[in-house]
Amino acid sequence: MIRKKEKGQLIVLSGPSGVGKSTVIAELLGQRRDIYFSVSYTTRQPRVGEQNGVNYNFVSREEFEGMIQRDELLEYAEYVSNYYGTSLKTIQEKLDAGIDVLLDIEVQGAAKVRSRCPDALFIFIIPPSFEELSRRLHGRHTDSEEVIQGRLEKARQEATEISKYDYLVINDKVSNAVSEIESILTAAQCRVENRKSIYEGVFAL
Amino acid sequence: MIRKKEKGQLIVLSGPSGVGKSTVIAELLGQRRDIYFSVSYTTRQPRVGEQNGVNYNFVSREEFEGMIQRDELLEYAEYVSNYYGTSLKTIQEKLDAGIDVLLDIEVQGAAKVRSRCPDALFIFIIPPSFEELSRRLHGRHTDSEEVIQGRLEKARQEATEISKYDYLVINDKVSNAVSEIESILTAAQCRVENRKSIYEGVFAL
Repeated sequence: MIRKKEKGQLIVLSGPSGVGKSTVIAELLGQRRDIYFSVSYTTRQPRVGEQNGVNYNFVSREEFEGMIQRDELLEYAEYVSNYYGTSLKTIQEKLDAGIDVLLDIEVQGAAKVRSRCPDALFIFIIPPSFEELSRRLHGRHTDSEEVIQGRLEKARQEATEISKYDYLVINDKVSNAVSEIESILTAAQCRVENRKSIYEGVFAL
Repeated sequence: MIRKKEKGQLIVLSGPSGVGKSTVIAELLGQRRDIYFSVSYTTRQPRVGEQNGVNYNFVSREEFEGMIQRDELLEYAEYVSNYYGTSLKTIQEKLDAGIDVLLDIEVQGAAKVRSRCPDALFIFIIPPSFEELSRRLHGRHTDSEEVIQGRLEKARQEATEISKYDYLVINDKVSNAVSEIESILTAAQCRVENRKSIYEGVFAL
C-alpha cells in the first residue's frame, strides 16, 4: 500500500572520522532511493577526485558569507579556516514535498539542527571498539600518526554528546548498521503522530 | 555480535477485535523466538479447543481475587462478569532476565500499564479501512450481526485512545504488519538510552 507522506523526515547522522559513515550512507542510499542526501556547502578547495555537487558544493568565501547573511543555512561552522554548512532552502523544499532528507554532519552542527528542527531523527554511529576505530584510521594510510591521534581524541570528545542523540548504531559490519538505520526509519514512519491522518480516516474521527 | 541486554523490553499490543492481532502475534513469535508472550489470567470458562497456559491461565474467581488482594496483577478488568488480568510477577522476572515481554491487552488495560511502566512500548494495530474490519468480522462466521455491530462500535470508541500509543501498525497484510513491528522493536533496541553501557565502554566514558 502506498501512502503519500505529508512531510518528509529529516535524518541527522553523526559519527567519528574513521567509523565508516560514508560507506554506510552509500549503502543506505542504494537501498532507499527515496531518501535525498543533502550535499554540504564548503569554501575549501576540492581534493583530487572530489566532484562539485556530489561530495560538496564548492563555493567562494564571498558566496558563503552571503548565505550566512541571508540566513540561508540550517547550520554552519568554520573549521581550519574554511566554512562548512547546510542549505536550509533545499532541505525545506524536499521535506515539504514529503521526501526524507539525510544530513551527514558533525556533533556541533547537529546541536544547531536540534535547536531548529526538534522533530529530526538524530542517529550516532560508533565503531564496535576504540581499538577498531584506531585500526580503521591507520588502515586508510592517508593521515600522519599525529593527525590520527587528533581524530581519536576528537572522537572521545564527541562521544560525550551521544546522549543527546535519539539512536545509537554500531558499525561492526556495514550491512548490520544499514539494517539498523532502516529499522529506525521504518519505526519513525510508524509513530502515531506520523500516521494521524491514516487512523483518523479509518475510524472517521 | 551478541550483546547481553541489561533489561527486557515490555511491549504492549492493542487493536480492535477482528483486526487480525492473533495471527500477527503468532507470526511475530515464530520469527522472534526470544520474545516471551505473556498469557493472561481469566476466570471465564475455557472454550472448545482452548488450552490452559496457552490461550489463558484459567483460574477460579477466588484465586483471581486473591491475586488482586496481593497486588500481583499489573492490570486487570472485569468484563461480562469475568476477570481478565496480567500477572506482574512473571513479567518482572522475564524483564529482569533481559527477556522482551509481549502483552496483548485492551485499551483500558494498556492505560494501566502506561501509568505503571512508562518505558513500555505501546503499539496499536488497525485495519486498512473500517469496511475491511467489518468484512473480517463477518468472515469469521462466529458472531451474530448484533455482536459484530457491537464490536465495530467498540473499535470506534477505542480508536479515540490511539494518540496515547507510541506506534501505529496497519494490518493490510500480515507480513507487512509483522515487519513493521520487528522494525519498531529493533529501533527500540537502538535507542541511545538502551545502549548507554555500550558507548560508555567503547569510549571509556
